[in-house]
This record gives sequence, structure tokens and C-alpha cells, in this order.
Amino acid sequence: MSFSDDTSVRDLGEGRFDAPIRPGWDIAGNANGGYLLALVGRAMATHCRRPDPVTLTAHYLSPGREGPATVRCETIKEGRRFATVSDDMEAGGRGVLRALGAFGSLDDGPGGPERVDASPPELPPVEDCIHSASGEGFAPPFMRHMDLHLHPEDAGFRVGEPSGEARMRGWFRLPGSDRVDPIGLLLGLDAFPPTIFNARLPVGWTPTVELTCHVRARPVPGWLRARFTTRFVTGGFLEEDGELWDEAGRLVAQSRQLALVPRPD
Amino acid sequence: MSFSDDTSVRDLGEGRFDAPIRPGWDIAGNANGGYLLALVGRAMATHCRRPDPVTLTAHYLSPGREGPATVRCETIKEGRRFATVSDDMEAGGRGVLRALGAFGSLDDGPGGPERVDASPPELPPVEDCIHSASGEGFAPPFMRHMDLHLHPEDAGFRVGEPSGEARMRGWFRLPGSDRVDPIGLLLGLDAFPPTIFNARLPVGWTPTVELTCHVRARPVPGWLRARFTTRFVTGGFLEEDGELWDEAGRLVAQSRQLALVPRPD
Repeated sequence: MSFSDDTSVRDLGEGRFDAPIRPGWDIAGNANGGYLLALVGRAMATHCRRPDPVTLTAHYLSPGREGPATVRCETIKEGRRFATVSDDMEAGGRGVLRALGAFGSLDDGPGGPERVDASPPELPPVEDCIHSASGEGFAPPFMRHMDLHLHPEDAGFRVGEPSGEARMRGWFRLPGSDRVDPIGLLLGLDAFPPTIFNARLPVGWTPTVELTCHVRARPVPGWLRARFTTRFVTGGFLEEDGELWDEAGRLVAQSRQLALVPRPD
Repeated sequence: MSFSDDTSVRDLGEGRFDAPIRPGWDIAGNANGGYLLALVGRAMATHCRRPDPVTLTAHYLSPGREGPATVRCETIKEGRRFATVSDDMEAGGRGVLRALGAFGSLDDGPGGPERVDASPPELPPVEDCIHSASGEGFAPPFMRHMDLHLHPEDAGFRVGEPSGEARMRGWFRLPGSDRVDPIGLLLGLDAFPPTIFNARLPVGWTPTVELTCHVRARPVPGWLRARFTTRFVTGGFLEEDGELWDEAGRLVAQSRQLALVPRPD
């Protein structure tokens, strides 16, 4: 099954959608947060009839497990440029996530001034990077659904040799598709291994409290370059900042998430 | 009136609050976005009985003008660490903002590993910085409610000499209070002049679509150091990233907002 099939939703009317959590998108049985966000993002975009999640925030309430799930959308405001939409996802009788987003069309940009003070991450060619679902070490099931190749300098954590920098860089693509659409960007923004895995800290699981994604442009066909960094591991929290760049060298999406840093056992 | 008085709310029961938008917190008649977020943050914290907005996202729907306003809170989840709360603010019969946040107590941190790969902004002493409500140039009314002193290198835009870097740095404090509490941090994260004013681009008004704040710690008494930067002005949007640091040298809050960059007239 493709990403597009696995994030398809069925409109039940009155803002309700069947949005089953498909098999194989999990890590240790719990669906990946980016996959869940893509699923609800698809429902929200359908509901408000605007294609692009310009900014979308999710609060993760409980793990989503494979099986039936329902999404309930509410349009809060219908503006000229954007619709503001809220969303609840439930599965197994529990709230899985709550989302709030602004949807519009990225074609409607006003063509104003441009200025970029940043560069895409430098990466070795894809064939010299490390396929995330290959070989030994950390390779959760959901990574088999994507072409995710880590920068060799950032892949050592998989064999017990973290880089010492709280950073993950690599290539991202969805198999069977020539480009990643804005819904696919939501997946790409939460598909990479946690930056903390490279930080040489006694931290394992870092559950996401909140994730906000900004989609800045529709990617051109081809691979995306990704960079995720963490600057602050403090007070039991960390933030993770993400960027996705397309083959035209444009930033296409940004993210920031707040995650818990549990005390080591 | 103090910030604390001007963000006080009255609990009407069943999640409803009177939260009037007080005079003088505006720019050209429209209340500052950070002030509005503090007002609803106060209502949300009261509603869920958790003091600190650990992460709070607001979507700005229409300008908030001085006068009566109602906030309606809904607790989505009561967890052990956090309550997840949604919120609508209405004034003059229109939705002003919609917020979604996780509230808890920043005292409950697990005391896990710490790592910081960043430093507070270097600033000249307060007395050598530029009071934002003084003198000529950009000094909107709401800035009179706070001690906001800009780094001299970032203050030239006020007299038509922008620095050329999309950055704002300075000191922040609330008069009559020895420290900024977490609700006050929400104000501090959206009180500085827009970074774009220093970018030498033909951009004036940049309305905020969405603002997400992470409160990472309660500040110690004293001044806060602030830094705001923008790296991407593209496709009719910009992001603005904020940091507030306390006098103990700790990051106490982070923010990112997505704003529109209207086409020049």
C-alpha cells in the first residue's frame, strides 16, 4: 500500500471521517506521530476544501494503535485566504490527538519580497547514506514505508556510536510517487529518528507533547533534504526543530515539537 | 493598571470567562497578540487548575479591540502531568482567537539530563539600550505597559535605519513586578517589534496567522533577555523565532510564529 492509500479517509458527513490507522506505520505498536498527523491533515483538508495545511498543530493525547479511528472536524473560520479547522481523532474509545490548523492554497501567495538566511543541509549522495530500514539497530516498522536515508555522520547511533551532536540529517522520499505533497510533508517532519539519539545522553523514549508544522511551499519532484536539531534539553523537556528542503533548493516545510525527556530509570 | 490586573478574568462557570480587552494594549486600535494570548492563557490555567502554559498555540482570527470579551474553555484531556485545553475568545460577536495548549506545573519536571547548545543574547546594559516607548518613531501604545529596551544595533529601524538583519534583541520586564510569571512570558514572546522591521524589505504590517509558545521554566526575579530572528521570508510568509532567557542564564521560553507578508502596495 502507498502512503496515499494509507492516509485515505472516508467522509461520513457533518465533519466526521473514517480514518483507520493502517498496519505497519508503528513503532512498538504505536503509530508514528507524523503518520497520524498526515491522516488527520487529509481529513481536515477534505473537510474545508482547501488543499494545503499551511500551519498545523497537534497535541498527542494517547497512542494510536492499528485499527478503526474516527476524525471529527470543525471549521472555526472560513476566511478568504485560509480556513481555520479544529480536529479530534479517536480510536479505541480514547482521544488520540487534537489538532488545530489553517488550510489554504499555497498557489495563492502574494509574490512579495523574498529573503532566506539559511541553506539546505549538505548531504552525501543518497547511495552513500544509510537506509533507515536496513541492517542492524534502530529500524522501526513505519520506516519501511518511506525512503529515508540518514547522513552517515548521523547514523552511528544505530550501532551504539552517537555523533555527540543532537542532530539528524538525511534524504526523504515516498516510494511510488515522484513528489511529496503537502500532506506527505507532515509525515516527513516527524519520520526521522529523534535528534536525542545522537546526543550521548541517557535518554530513550521522548514522547511528543505538541508538534507544529508550517508548510511553506509545494515541493518540486524529487528527493527532500531534511535537518532536525535540538538546542535545549532542559527541565524534563526538549524541542526539536525540523526543516525540509526540495530539489529546487527551497525550504518547503518547518516544524517544532515539544517532547518529554523522562528521567532515566 | 498592572499587567496582572489587565489580564485578570472572571470565572462565569462551565468553562466561560469574562476576559475584557483593556484599553491601551493596542497597536492602531488592535490589541497586541501577546496580550490576548496572556488573557486567554490566564483563563485556561484557571479553568484547568494548572498554573503553567507548557505549550500554547493561538490562531488569530480577527483583531481584538478594547471592550468586553468572552473566553470559552474546554478541557480535552486531564492527564497526570498535563491538562490539554482548547479555548475560543470572542469579542464584538466575532471570533478573535482560537487556542490549544497543554498546562501543567513546571515544578513537576523529572530532573533528567540537561544539555544546552545555545547562549543568551549579549546585550549592552539596560541603560544603554533604547526604551521602546520613548522618543521618535515606532512606539505603539501597548509598549508603555512594559519595560522593553532594544539593543541599540536593532533599534535603528525606528528612525529609518534598519540594521539589515532580520533580528530584534533587548531587555524585557513588567513594571511593578519583581519577576515575569509564565503568563507574562506569553506577552514577552509577542511584544517586541517585528524582526522584519530590520530586514530592509518593503514590508510593513505582518499579521500573525499562528503563534506557538513553549514555556520551559519559571524565570528567577529580574530582567529577561530576548532574541527574535527570522530566517525565511518566502512565498508570502515569514516565521519569527523567539527566545526569552532569565537572569540565571536559563532559557525560560521559546516561540515561533507564522505571519503573512503582504505584497507591497
